[in-house]
Amino acid sequence: LSRNAEDTRSAVLDFQRRERIGLTEAVLCDRKTPGQITDILERFLAHGGACLLTRLDADKAAELPAGIRRSLDYHGLSRTAFFGGTLPRTTGASAAIVSGGTSDEPVCLEAARTLEFHGAESALYQDVGVAGLWRLLERVDRIGSHDVIIVVAGMEGALFSVLGGLVGAPIIAVPTSVGYGVSKGGQLSLNAALSSCAPGLVTVNIDNGYGAACAALRFLNHAAAPG
Amino acid sequence: LSRNAEDTRSAVLDFQRRERIGLTEAVLCDRKTPGQITDILERFLAHGGACLLTRLDADKAAELPAGIRRSLDYHGLSRTAFFGGTLPRTTGASAAIVSGGTSDEPVCLEAARTLEFHGAESALYQDVGVAGLWRLLERVDRIGSHDVIIVVAGMEGALFSVLGGLVGAPIIAVPTSVGYGVSKGGQLSLNAALSSCAPGLVTVNIDNGYGAACAALRFLNHAAAPG
Amino acid sequence: LSRNAEDTRSAVLDFQRRERIGLTEAVLCDRKTPGQITDILERFLAHGGACLLTRLDADKAAELPAGIRRSLDYHGLSRTAFFGGTLPRTTGASAAIVSGGTSDEPVCLEAARTLEFHGAESALYQDVGVAGLWRLLERVDRIGSHDVIIVVAGMEGALFSVLGGLVGAPIIAVPTSVGYGVSKGGQLSLNAALSSCAPGLVTVNIDNGYGAACAALRFLNHAAAPG
Amino acid sequence: LSRNAEDTRSAVLDFQRRERIGLTEAVLCDRKTPGQITDILERFLAHGGACLLTRLDADKAAELPAGIRRSLDYHGLSRTAFFGGTLPRTTGASAAIVSGGTSDEPVCLEAARTLEFHGAESALYQDVGVAGLWRLLERVDRIGSHDVIIVVAGMEGALFSVLGGLVGAPIIAVPTSVGYGVSKGGQLSLNAALSSCAPGLVTVNIDNGYGAACAALRFLNHAAAPG
Amino acid sequence: LSRNAEDTRSAVLDFQRRERIGLTEAVLCDRKTPGQITDILERFLAHGGACLLTRLDADKAAELPAGIRRSLDYHGLSRTAFFGGTLPRTTGASAAIVSGGTSDEPVCLEAARTLEFHGAESALYQDVGVAGLWRLLERVDRIGSHDVIIVVAGMEGALFSVLGGLVGAPIIAVPTSVGYGVSKGGQLSLNAALSSCAPGLVTVNIDNGYGAACAALRFLNHAAAPG
Amino acid sequence: LSRNAEDTRSAVLDFQRRERIGLTEAVLCDRKTPGQITDILERFLAHGGACLLTRLDADKAAELPAGIRRSLDYHGLSRTAFFGGTLPRTTGASAAIVSGGTSDEPVCLEAARTLEFHGAESALYQDVGVAGLWRLLERVDRIGSHDVIIVVAGMEGALFSVLGGLVGAPIIAVPTSVGYGVSKGGQLSLNAALSSCAPGLVTVNIDNGYGAACAALRFLNHAAAPG
Amino acid sequence: LSRNAEDTRSAVLDFQRRERIGLTEAVLCDRKTPGQITDILERFLAHGGACLLTRLDADKAAELPAGIRRSLDYHGLSRTAFFGGTLPRTTGASAAIVSGGTSDEPVCLEAARTLEFHGAESALYQDVGVAGLWRLLERVDRIGSHDVIIVVAGMEGALFSVLGGLVGAPIIAVPTSVGYGVSKGGQLSLNAALSSCAPGLVTVNIDNGYGAACAALRFLNHAAAPG
Amino acid sequence: LSRNAEDTRSAVLDFQRRERIGLTEAVLCDRKTPGQITDILERFLAHGGACLLTRLDADKAAELPAGIRRSLDYHGLSRTAFFGGTLPRTTGASAAIVSGGTSDEPVCLEAARTLEFHGAESALYQDVGVAGLWRLLERVDRIGSHDVIIVVAGMEGALFSVLGGLVGAPIIAVPTSVGYGVSKGGQLSLNAALSSCAPGLVTVNIDNGYGAACAALRFLNHAAAPG
Repeated sequence: LSRNAEDTRSAVLDFQRRERIGLTEAVLCDRKTPGQITDILERFLAHGGACLLTRLDADKAAELPAGIRRSLDYHGLSRTAFFGGTLPRTTGASAAIVSGGTSDEPVCLEAARTLEFHGAESALYQDVGVAGLWRLLERVDRIGSHDVIIVVAGMEGALFSVLGGLVGAPIIAVPTSVGYGVSKGGQLSLNAALSSCAPGLVTVNIDNGYGAACAALRFLNHAAAPG
Repeated sequence: LSRNAEDTRSAVLDFQRRERIGLTEAVLCDRKTPGQITDILERFLAHGGACLLTRLDADKAAELPAGIRRSLDYHGLSRTAFFGGTLPRTTGASAAIVSGGTSDEPVCLEAARTLEFHGAESALYQDVGVAGLWRLLERVDRIGSHDVIIVVAGMEGALFSVLGGLVGAPIIAVPTSVGYGVSKGGQLSLNAALSSCAPGLVTVNIDNGYGAACAALRFLNHAAAPG
Repeated sequence: LSRNAEDTRSAVLDFQRRERIGLTEAVLCDRKTPGQITDILERFLAHGGACLLTRLDADKAAELPAGIRRSLDYHGLSRTAFFGGTLPRTTGASAAIVSGGTSDEPVCLEAARTLEFHGAESALYQDVGVAGLWRLLERVDRIGSHDVIIVVAGMEGALFSVLGGLVGAPIIAVPTSVGYGVSKGGQLSLNAALSSCAPGLVTVNIDNGYGAACAALRFLNHAAAPG
Repeated sequence: LSRNAEDTRSAVLDFQRRERIGLTEAVLCDRKTPGQITDILERFLAHGGACLLTRLDADKAAELPAGIRRSLDYHGLSRTAFFGGTLPRTTGASAAIVSGGTSDEPVCLEAARTLEFHGAESALYQDVGVAGLWRLLERVDRIGSHDVIIVVAGMEGALFSVLGGLVGAPIIAVPTSVGYGVSKGGQLSLNAALSSCAPGLVTVNIDNGYGAACAALRFLNHAAAPG
Repeated sequence: LSRNAEDTRSAVLDFQRRERIGLTEAVLCDRKTPGQITDILERFLAHGGACLLTRLDADKAAELPAGIRRSLDYHGLSRTAFFGGTLPRTTGASAAIVSGGTSDEPVCLEAARTLEFHGAESALYQDVGVAGLWRLLERVDRIGSHDVIIVVAGMEGALFSVLGGLVGAPIIAVPTSVGYGVSKGGQLSLNAALSSCAPGLVTVNIDNGYGAACAALRFLNHAAAPG
Repeated sequence: LSRNAEDTRSAVLDFQRRERIGLTEAVLCDRKTPGQITDILERFLAHGGACLLTRLDADKAAELPAGIRRSLDYHGLSRTAFFGGTLPRTTGASAAIVSGGTSDEPVCLEAARTLEFHGAESALYQDVGVAGLWRLLERVDRIGSHDVIIVVAGMEGALFSVLGGLVGAPIIAVPTSVGYGVSKGGQLSLNAALSSCAPGLVTVNIDNGYGAACAALRFLNHAAAPG
Repeated sequence: LSRNAEDTRSAVLDFQRRERIGLTEAVLCDRKTPGQITDILERFLAHGGACLLTRLDADKAAELPAGIRRSLDYHGLSRTAFFGGTLPRTTGASAAIVSGGTSDEPVCLEAARTLEFHGAESALYQDVGVAGLWRLLERVDRIGSHDVIIVVAGMEGALFSVLGGLVGAPIIAVPTSVGYGVSKGGQLSLNAALSSCAPGLVTVNIDNGYGAACAALRFLNHAAAPG
Repeated sequence: LSRNAEDTRSAVLDFQRRERIGLTEAVLCDRKTPGQITDILERFLAHGGACLLTRLDADKAAELPAGIRRSLDYHGLSRTAFFGGTLPRTTGASAAIVSGGTSDEPVCLEAARTLEFHGAESALYQDVGVAGLWRLLERVDRIGSHDVIIVVAGMEGALFSVLGGLVGAPIIAVPTSVGYGVSKGGQLSLNAALSSCAPGLVTVNIDNGYGAACAALRFLNHAAAPG
């Protein structure tokens, strides 16, 4: 197959991304082969920067070359890895990560690890779904004291609306694919976030803990010195 | 067009329905012509029973013959009418009808009028959506003291889950078509009712205040003498 | 990862649920790891209550610690388990569980086991689908004599409407995912339940035998002493 | 705009269709202008044949030239018209047309008129929906004595399955768009026909009374002299 | 679990079906366990009749008891089996089974085997899709000479329309799940059958070769002696 | 109809909302009658606060009582009105509102008016869709200098991704219902925002300019004093 | 509302588009007000170029200022207008425009007018749907002799596949929204084009005659001097 | 099973396809058994022509007879094979294949291999997604110099619009199934291609690299000698 000279490698990395928008390019691993991931990490190594890997299953991580594996800080439940360390802390602000149930934990942790990689702090408030409302009401003041709130929920996503009516901080909803029957796949929870009767909620794609953390980082990066 | 002798009228009415299942046949008017409605009511008149009309627009009601119109107890916002009076009260039990917002009022009133026609009592608790949670919390004890609860909500339907986690009475959800964008048409609210994290909720079709009242009546009719 | 002191365990259990709404919190196992389930059961053990587990596959049950396993009353076809016994009988009322075909049996049994756990009685009437209508007509009087009826059906769900037109007791539909082509996944059967020409049917989510039993329990708990 | 010489008229009529497949080309009027319909009818007139018009609203019919209008046998509720008379009777066989409710009448009549145009007989059995099952059971023997059965039903379409389990004649389902909420538009009824637990049902498109009649005609034309 | 005395077996068989509608009850095996299938076949054995099994995978067939297996006439590609022989031939009429491509073969054979079980004859015309139109045009006269035509096609289902415009015999479409991207799952082919510009086509559910054969049998059974 | 004493008015207003979450309750007018709107505004008047009305058509506005109308600052293209003035400016920060095409203008202006009501500044950058990329590239530095960016786009929503890859400020996408065929209704544009290859974008419901402004206000309110 | 100085007009026109990609910017009128259209045309006038208007209803055209109207070459059925004349002919090549039925004519003519505006020739072959296959077979050689073929069809879109199997020229499918029931809106016809068994077909959005013509122009512009 | 004499083989090959439309019949392997593929290839061998196999997994390829395997030029990542060599080069023109990300590579290579089989040249430009716009802008002149451009992208498909606004050559979009949440399966990317604000884009089915190459070949075959 003919290929242009300067395009001999399949991935063209965007090393300037952090300068341009304050976020480093991450490697979404779920449809990449171990060979493709290795190739990308070697170029990161040559270039000298740290990078974040997401959706990296333990099995696929185990297929990477030993040299690469040794440089990875891998975390199983969140399926994330840090390669070449993390970025320096740039803000004292912090994010709350709130979830409806135990099954949402992997998505919470993907968000937490993405924040950690970029040098930002977060605190977890899990399993405070609205079926037992007292659990949320007991914690709402502490949750509301954070600079930005990431709310993670599947099924009918009622948590988004209830929390949105109680606190004024920026709230980023992360619908999850937890559910069955009509809530299978997460579309219901996503639409609940979009249609909330509480004003000013925003949302990211289903199960996208990484994206919610990036949105929080855009906020935290800019909150330091607004207008 | 050839038609069988004994089927010369298009509607075959089910006058025995009340004896069989405790509910009288109702006339769903939205796809019937004034002529068809008149024909049905005249047969109810000949047979001697009362009947309930639903989804009857004011314009269509005005096209009915004057004689029929005079026998109708018409109610505009709920688009219902009683023909030949109402049925006798058979129970002292009562239903609560709870709604999320002002736009859900027509559906609430269709349920209330259906209960009234069948001789059952109800009380309305409107506009207690979760964006201002205190409105619901202030009323939850009174709501929970009814024998059955009909909850009416559109948009993301978070009210179903919050109420379901707070009271133990039977709860019948009525999703409404109130909403726009991804919540347009009521499918989102319906799915929220079906996927609630609060256990034991049941639901009826979108905007089906009539059906929710019938379900409540099945319960109230049987609660008097269980097992 | 930073976590708040009082939130060190991922699950915040809602032990007060039974007092509040008459139903004990159940553990939905299908997206939980054996470790998470063990952690939850140990807290139930410490707290002293019985609990119901649903959607627990035999393989996952076998991975639980031996000590936990010995305290489980596990039932394979329904994928349910009782932990710490069952709750005391509180009513003499009983539920009928009616199904269209043999393939709906696991959902029927999830409902039956949930009722059994909460101390309520039920009787099964299986395989009475409408393609052989005589099967249902022969049994309709016995079915109608129960205090509440749970109807379980997949494919086109015609059983809901036929039964709803024949008996007056409260009817809770459970659509199942049994079907192929356009009825695959259960949405068709669900919509049939919602759109039934028989008045006053209510429904729960697809394959949700647990939810239907909880709804029946809300009714049976309140039918004893209405309004 | 350039156009090829022999294609100066927009419609190329298929006058040979009846010889080829036993059915005459019909004119589906709902997206055609009065001018286009006139143009087509004039060519039918020149060619000498009869033709059937479907989905012709009264308003549009009134806009046709007076000469055309005088040759039309127009029928309002079915929105059909015969132009140039009807075709000669070729069979003594007859079709039953069975429907669930009054609102399905326009579709029933479109089927009946299409049969009448092609010289075939039919009998109507309307309003025998399953909510009042006795209505159908009383008529099932007469219905089953016809050579082919067209069943017309909206909402949840349970009538298809119940009738399909009771009679052995060929059954053609016509789902209708009658319904609201999740049954709006007819997709639910269509899928119920496709997924029926009764074996050997077939279906046509939503509201397609014309198509069901054509399918019945294919059968009646061939039943006279099989294999 | 309590169960009613006369309902101790989960399946209530409909042995009278053949008398009632001319078709014998078939056993759809895909969601039944080997134990459930064995139980059903033993009752057929006790009752004395033949029966057809559909969607029986080779692996599941191999798990049946040896005694049962010996009485099965199993056919792998169609996943069908005859138990207790076939029914006697009652008609000299025959069906054509026409398909668009090689991948549709299992569905074609399910239809052919169902016809064979009921004592009816069929002939296969495979791989005559419209991309190479000459293949169909060469065979159209032979195809049209059969008493009924079953057309099997996936992807865009253009074959239904082309054949429907060429022959006048009754045509039963069977959409298949063959396809990818937007045609994955068979909904596209199904909708093409329902929307065909050729008049009088009817359709069954996706991949439902069994249902198409049953529909053909309804026709062949009645064509012998029409009204 | 019976109604509880303290619930005699249908709307229960949430006057404390601004204190709780920094945003004043707005009146979504599209499914409310002029009478209901008047009732709500009179209570706002009695209570003493300003309020924002959205989705108020000119025709409906004209039906309000003259006294109410005189107190309204109505803006036609955005369908918004201020009642009782606007809130005081609390921040020097500003939002950019960027759109793909002229047809998106009403949504842009709903966002701009919502910001204006809450005392926040905004600047409009319209018609910079990616089909003529130079239009965006010429303005990207100015757009990126705002504290928060609201991007409004219909059709395929490519503008979200392109802008998201160029600037680091918080970006809130507002998909619009502008489009036809497969992009009709706005779901495509919404999904494009959710699936953007540019990291950290968030979105609100289709055509929800009001919601995007509220989200921007949550940010601007908290950016002043983070952490 | 604050607006940036250089962005005082809502539309930023892309006058360089023709130089860049060989196609002039067109004005899609269906969601623009007469005022917005007038504003855009005045800027085209000032700039000196011709422009094409699409989806311009006769009513809206009549609301434009008389001066503008006089410069418009308006064509009703296609809802297109030329402003400032047409572009010079640059190629001797020509396109065939083929359609399935009379109802597809407006889309055919939108394509024809777009080609005419850009100085390209086209010929129409209408009403050659596959239900009467001889109509297409008689014309296939003439159709195949054009340089590019635009095929316009609604309903099940079988015409795309049949023509694609007969000729080797580039074929651009235009699915139309003509149809009802499951083919309503054009999605079926679109998916048929995408899933055709004939290789190498491409498609544009539903009813997008303009887009198909632009695609044909990209081809004709480049065919003159390939690689 | 009875089968007609001349139809004893299941596949009827269309050897004349290349003469008729310039493209050779390809064998889509994903739903064919090794036996069926072998049967087809043996007939190609007997007939004397070369053929292309697509969607042939390595595992299935390994199951083919050794004699067949030796004649295959198999390529794993694209899942294609050439049998009997390739076709002779007939044009000096060339296609660009442009993609958004590494995960789209298999689809790019299916297109490249299909072009290679038919004797046409192509060049790959991978990983130039719009999140890092400079990657595309640096290469746009080279890309635009090809005779036809195939653009391959998943997720939100913004690349189609950006490239379509920058170059005037014919552009064929290939949406891919790369994505998760709302972009899972490729429908989003497909709809983005159909709704692009850049004029004159066309598209093929999801993941259909083969189809895009065939469309490019139709163009290249005809570009040599237009009109």
